[in-house]
Amino acid sequence: MARWEPNTRERLVRAALDLFTEQGYDATTVSEIAERAGGLTKMTFFRHFPDKREVLFAAGQEIHSRLLADAIAAAPAPATPLEAVAAGLDALTVTFSDDRRELAGRLRTVIAANGELRERAVFKRAGLTEALREALEKRGVPDPAASVAAEIGIGAYYRAFERWADSDGRQTLTELTRQTLEQFRAATAALG
Amino acid sequence: MARWEPNTRERLVRAALDLFTEQGYDATTVSEIAERAGGLTKMTFFRHFPDKREVLFAAGQEIHSRLLADAIAAAPAPATPLEAVAAGLDALTVTFSDDRRELAGRLRTVIAANGELRERAVFKRAGLTEALREALEKRGVPDPAASVAAEIGIGAYYRAFERWADSDGRQTLTELTRQTLEQFRAATAALG
Repeated sequence: MARWEPNTRERLVRAALDLFTEQGYDATTVSEIAERAGGLTKMTFFRHFPDKREVLFAAGQEIHSRLLADAIAAAPAPATPLEAVAAGLDALTVTFSDDRRELAGRLRTVIAANGELRERAVFKRAGLTEALREALEKRGVPDPAASVAAEIGIGAYYRAFERWADSDGRQTLTELTRQTLEQFRAATAALG
Repeated sequence: MARWEPNTRERLVRAALDLFTEQGYDATTVSEIAERAGGLTKMTFFRHFPDKREVLFAAGQEIHSRLLADAIAAAPAPATPLEAVAAGLDALTVTFSDDRRELAGRLRTVIAANGELRERAVFKRAGLTEALREALEKRGVPDPAASVAAEIGIGAYYRAFERWADSDGRQTLTELTRQTLEQFRAATAALG
């Protein structure tokens, strides 16, 4: 009855990342991932993810988009667009506890080694940007300000994520993202 | 000897777009595209493109990245980052003559109908943004200003491209892109 355990999804993600790291993405099958995740079957895998590639992206994209959107909707009315973005990024980044830092570095290595995964990663980033833009639009931020603020926010988040994955963990992802967003804001203001 | 004609690549692109429009992307084979392009063979197709999907993207991404990068490198030294971006976009957009406007609308319809193509289109956009960012960095624009300026430039270009594809062609893509870039610049300045 392993398939009913609540953390099946998370175990599949970790098993996939382990196998992709050990033997490469192309050489790994869905059956192997399911087996490594604690003797699960292919069928169980496909109840959680449509294919091998999505195991690294689907869960994150959905949850992260929702965290961003909800926090932006909940930001106080007088918040500027970039303050609302900062609130969204705070809500997203506090979910990354330090034990995920090592995973983040390995995930990056696996993605960098495979064209299909690189492409999917870019698509995920675009999805997050669009979620942020839509949430700003719902607050009444006009276009194209909403687009620009969303690009700045996601740009800062990805940059901070890189720094975090490379770091010794002394600063949290939330702290690094706040600093990086401020750098992006200052650089943007200086563009004139 | 049809395969030696200089415009083989262009004919393959147009044949692919025709067939994707008529019968859908999934239902179209590489052999059909080659045949429609004037009795060419699959082998000829594969000399120009690695697969069916790339026929819509490969040529554009390569050429457009180069046009952007060369014009940004050639912009006069005192140009601000956004002025250099504008020069790059001018060089890119003047290559879109009005007879490509109708093609652009059809290309959009084909891409919107297929997940694989939408994903590839997002990857192309990211590639153009990266080309722009790199070209700015070579001019000495520091990071993250180069990233933000690149996002603004590509954001404005894509927005203008939509407007152009929907328009009656009274304004050129170059004119529309200049206007849209100015709107993006103003919205960015207003973010504070």
